Amino acid sequence: MRVAPQMEIEDVTQHDGKAPGCSSCGDKSCTAKNRQKGESDKDFEDRRKLQSRLCRIDRKIVVMSGKGGVGKSTMAVNLAMALVMDGKRVGLLDVDIHGPSVPTMLGLEQQSVQGDGESLFPVDVGGLKVMSPGFFLQKQEDAIIWRGPMKMIAIKQFLKDVAWGDLDYLVIDSPPGTGDEPLSVCQLIGRLDGAVIVTTPQKVASVDVRKSVTFCRQLNVPVLGIVENMSGFACPKCGEVTQIFSTGGGLSISNSMQVPFLGAIPMDPQIAMACDNGQSFVYTYVTSPTAKAMQEIVAKIRFADKADHTEQKAG
Amino acid sequence: MRVAPQMEIEDVTQHDGKAPGCSSCGDKSCTAKNRQKGESDKDFEDRRKLQSRLCRIDRKIVVMSGKGGVGKSTMAVNLAMALVMDGKRVGLLDVDIHGPSVPTMLGLEQQSVQGDGESLFPVDVGGLKVMSPGFFLQKQEDAIIWRGPMKMIAIKQFLKDVAWGDLDYLVIDSPPGTGDEPLSVCQLIGRLDGAVIVTTPQKVASVDVRKSVTFCRQLNVPVLGIVENMSGFACPKCGEVTQIFSTGGGLSISNSMQVPFLGAIPMDPQIAMACDNGQSFVYTYVTSPTAKAMQEIVAKIRFADKADHTEQKAG
Repeated sequence: MRVAPQMEIEDVTQHDGKAPGCSSCGDKSCTAKNRQKGESDKDFEDRRKLQSRLCRIDRKIVVMSGKGGVGKSTMAVNLAMALVMDGKRVGLLDVDIHGPSVPTMLGLEQQSVQGDGESLFPVDVGGLKVMSPGFFLQKQEDAIIWRGPMKMIAIKQFLKDVAWGDLDYLVIDSPPGTGDEPLSVCQLIGRLDGAVIVTTPQKVASVDVRKSVTFCRQLNVPVLGIVENMSGFACPKCGEVTQIFSTGGGLSISNSMQVPFLGAIPMDPQIAMACDNGQSFVYTYVTSPTAKAMQEIVAKIRFADKADHTEQKAG
Repeated sequence: MRVAPQMEIEDVTQHDGKAPGCSSCGDKSCTAKNRQKGESDKDFEDRRKLQSRLCRIDRKIVVMSGKGGVGKSTMAVNLAMALVMDGKRVGLLDVDIHGPSVPTMLGLEQQSVQGDGESLFPVDVGGLKVMSPGFFLQKQEDAIIWRGPMKMIAIKQFLKDVAWGDLDYLVIDSPPGTGDEPLSVCQLIGRLDGAVIVTTPQKVASVDVRKSVTFCRQLNVPVLGIVENMSGFACPKCGEVTQIFSTGGGLSISNSMQVPFLGAIPMDPQIAMACDNGQSFVYTYVTSPTAKAMQEIVAKIRFADKADHTEQKAG
């Protein structure tokens, strides 16, 4: 898959006074400047290195869900690609250690990661910089059988050792739940710009997904909004719309928990087909009604994210 | 939901010489009889207690998947209920700490757990004994934000402190992936009788689900077989069958990894409806073609499990 990103990239390093790295950083409030009490040389150096990578990334957005299989990775891949199509510099970090779907969805299954001893280089696909635990497996069916602490180390490495460079957006595809992976992401990044929470319409999903809203609140991550995926299926022969997974779960979470509703994406066999073929749906099927629904959601995410930025800067 | 289980229950304590508890256990090979090197009093007592619960349970089957949202909980609930309908004494343990779906699926959302200081009592629904982390939440949207070690402790408690009593089957509903929860289940139980692995048809799912087969092999858990869920959708108006999530993923895993294929379950809006309404699909819609597909799968699981038992006893 190849996309031709527009080249007019805004200079996001100016957004809130962020400098390109710790060595020349003018931010006096930066916590990576000074050693913390009891911190070893190695921990201090790691933290500085992490911070110097992160401060070159303007916005960090996590795509999450309390429930698996709702389309988090599909949303993350298409959000990232829609931002690239919009001329942004974008990274996509897959932190689903046990089930990394991003390589398959972007046709990168045969890719491995190159490094120079200091940094690991993300894989470039049509201007999108991608990193995934899937790139480190010898065989696709290999299982990473890790407990939480190992996962924390791996996620730290993806943030600290990957040469992301200057990015407007880092989109993070999180595994389901409210456990080690999303917790590590929130704690390592410190200040996430927002979470996009994906659900499917049925109650069984929305019960779990409400937990993600609670999780974000407890960790002070702004919820950019809820996306309802697999929302109704239109029969390609007769047009009859069936609510296979019931209806209204996303809107119900939005209303009861007072978070924005970003929109609904219908079930569309072309989405599964695009994912299996390693094509970005939003790019390959750009004119389809489902891709348009996705694009409208991406526009709202960008708006919500900007509003949130303005609010924080004003506050 | 109420079901009337048949009362002719076979005496499974005779199956392989298991006695009802450690105090009167005749099994000289039992590892819980003697303290292990370096084991503290508390750890020894905990291990004895765990063992005395487990040896009253004849068969322990885990329902797992490398991918979320494929219908693991639906499969686990309906497998457990089908076994109850068949006259078995069955427990259902939900170890999905971050997204426990079992309470919603069985209409047990308002249930809490009673205890007597020594034991926690599972919730009884139509003869099925159920335990879930969901029973311990004050509000349904509360999130359990735990790292791995806490999850290991909770799962151990569910096995060690719950008064399961004498069971023919304990069905364990595992969260997606190959991380802390399935690993804890395998390590705590020691000898699982088998794993039922659930997938959906598309490649993106089957890539992750292959990892579950690898996981089981590495931990010596017999794979009873693969279930392909959400396998095609028949339009209720015109009958046109659409493969929304592609087709053939389950059979392809079965062939390439040489594990049995247990069958395919079509997408059926009645499944989502039953789950949301707290009804066991296989009981409530007993005569529907989808319920029959499920029953055939359960029969194969019982057969595979028995064959495996016979093989192990013969070996």
